[in-house]
Amino acid sequence: MTEVCIGIDIGGTNTIFGLVDKNGRILIEDSIRTSDHEEVEDFLKALASKMNQTISEISEPIELKGIGIGAPNGNYYKGTIEFAPNLKWKGIIELVKMMKQYFPVPVFLTNDANAAAIGEMIYGGAKGMKDFFIVTLGTGVGSGFVINGNVVYGHDGFAGELGHTIVKENGRDCGCGQKGCLEAYASANGLKRTVCELIAKHSYSGMLKDKSCEDLSAKDIDTAARKGDTMALEAFEITGKILGKSLANTIAITSPEAIFLFGGLANAGKLILDPTKKHMEDNLLNIYKNKVKLLKSSLLEENAAILGSSALVWNELESL
Amino acid sequence: MTEVCIGIDIGGTNTIFGLVDKNGRILIEDSIRTSDHEEVEDFLKALASKMNQTISEISEPIELKGIGIGAPNGNYYKGTIEFAPNLKWKGIIELVKMMKQYFPVPVFLTNDANAAAIGEMIYGGAKGMKDFFIVTLGTGVGSGFVINGNVVYGHDGFAGELGHTIVKENGRDCGCGQKGCLEAYASANGLKRTVCELIAKHSYSGMLKDKSCEDLSAKDIDTAARKGDTMALEAFEITGKILGKSLANTIAITSPEAIFLFGGLANAGKLILDPTKKHMEDNLLNIYKNKVKLLKSSLLEENAAILGSSALVWNELESL
Repeated sequence: MTEVCIGIDIGGTNTIFGLVDKNGRILIEDSIRTSDHEEVEDFLKALASKMNQTISEISEPIELKGIGIGAPNGNYYKGTIEFAPNLKWKGIIELVKMMKQYFPVPVFLTNDANAAAIGEMIYGGAKGMKDFFIVTLGTGVGSGFVINGNVVYGHDGFAGELGHTIVKENGRDCGCGQKGCLEAYASANGLKRTVCELIAKHSYSGMLKDKSCEDLSAKDIDTAARKGDTMALEAFEITGKILGKSLANTIAITSPEAIFLFGGLANAGKLILDPTKKHMEDNLLNIYKNKVKLLKSSLLEENAAILGSSALVWNELESL
Repeated sequence: MTEVCIGIDIGGTNTIFGLVDKNGRILIEDSIRTSDHEEVEDFLKALASKMNQTISEISEPIELKGIGIGAPNGNYYKGTIEFAPNLKWKGIIELVKMMKQYFPVPVFLTNDANAAAIGEMIYGGAKGMKDFFIVTLGTGVGSGFVINGNVVYGHDGFAGELGHTIVKENGRDCGCGQKGCLEAYASANGLKRTVCELIAKHSYSGMLKDKSCEDLSAKDIDTAARKGDTMALEAFEITGKILGKSLANTIAITSPEAIFLFGGLANAGKLILDPTKKHMEDNLLNIYKNKVKLLKSSLLEENAAILGSSALVWNELESL
């Protein structure tokens, strides 16, 4: 009998899930469209049905130990999704309670970045580490902190929003309503905005000149930078400078062993890691210099969401 | 038999210590001059001798459970003081090891701000709280974080240097060698520098005009502000703005139940609390707004150092 849990990642468009064993082997996975369901009740009914169907397709005998869910604005303490801007379901959604009606097993919920941190700790590069954090550099910027071996949920379950710390006074508009958030600079979208600013500022006839700000993608900028386009390279330098300074300030608070970068922008590798590392070190107090590892997450992006959510279960069951 | 521990606070000029029971009652206290001792060995010999003499003066029967030490750049994990700029003893000092040769009891060491946080948790306003932090606003700015009920020491024992997060790009020189640290703005000295900047900038004929920047004290500014001096009031407003924004960013990472302000500048009360609170709230992500209490430390400043250091012992013995 293989002990498994189900990791679920709820995104604005798709919800993916998979059965995962303790070693991080994904036995099977599938998905449904989140955005097809106007009501959370319909969504959960469809999801549970697809999960049961998927479970029935597995030939080896399994024992389901629990369900872990990563979701935007997921509140660990309350098992709720609260006012998630990218989901159709408004207000406070009692997701854990509702899920337990379909599957009477332990169900845990947190936000996607915390799930990624736990995934890194259970299956990835943070194995054995007690103090680290992960920064997810995707469409937005998320973060998950582990201190003394425990995920930091904070008093209300919403800790770890490094993406919404303010890094520029009167800076760029952020989707959250504030100005100058890290997310407005260090996300894939932030990188695009930096390129657009640079193109507006300088005379430039490089390979990105014909793209509108709308059409430009982080992938285009990555490709251009690899071909030596100076504007694209400068955009990575600026992004790394802002991110590196923010990481330096965060180190002064938490003094971690390592920081993991994850998600779209992290895939740019040295293009983003090198300037980030340089500016991080340049802005560190002496006692922290050359101590903190800056690493790319070792989880594959296509697996990380499921692995992270499933790891939440193993982590909880172990600490019981 | 009263169970007591000894709390010691090592400062650049004086070292104070006291015998404290579990309820925070200081049975007796005394001090020696730190700066009289060029060598740490001589210092410890003098301190131990004074401690023994003090213990012998107590009439009630006591049992010494341990010694807690708060010291600048104190490393909890290693029991060392490392490269403390304000102490005469250079390099790495094995203080816990040396103290145990005089007193064969459990000895714990941390920096003064962490000690203040533990003091607040064991004896003060943070009793029963699991997630909070304290910011000490004195000559410098220190901080101590408690998350999930545990002090955050970080991977290397040096976590919690909020005073050396950079809040202004190319800002004021800080004693640590960086530019634009919070400490250069939100300390008593930072407040003075703000007044001097304002006097240089504006035409001003108020009550602080005849003071040189060197002579000006935070107390002068406090007095002037209470008498309605506009420049002094503006200096508190600016200080509160910078501190409030920094606290908002820190909340986005740790999501605490409360923040305690302690030390010289915190004694200005509403003068500093009101602008800090306003700007903190103005810069918070929606999910954190109106949730985090901003409080003045409930520990008396003259007792806090001894209480905090002694609390370190009770906290450790309880968690064994």
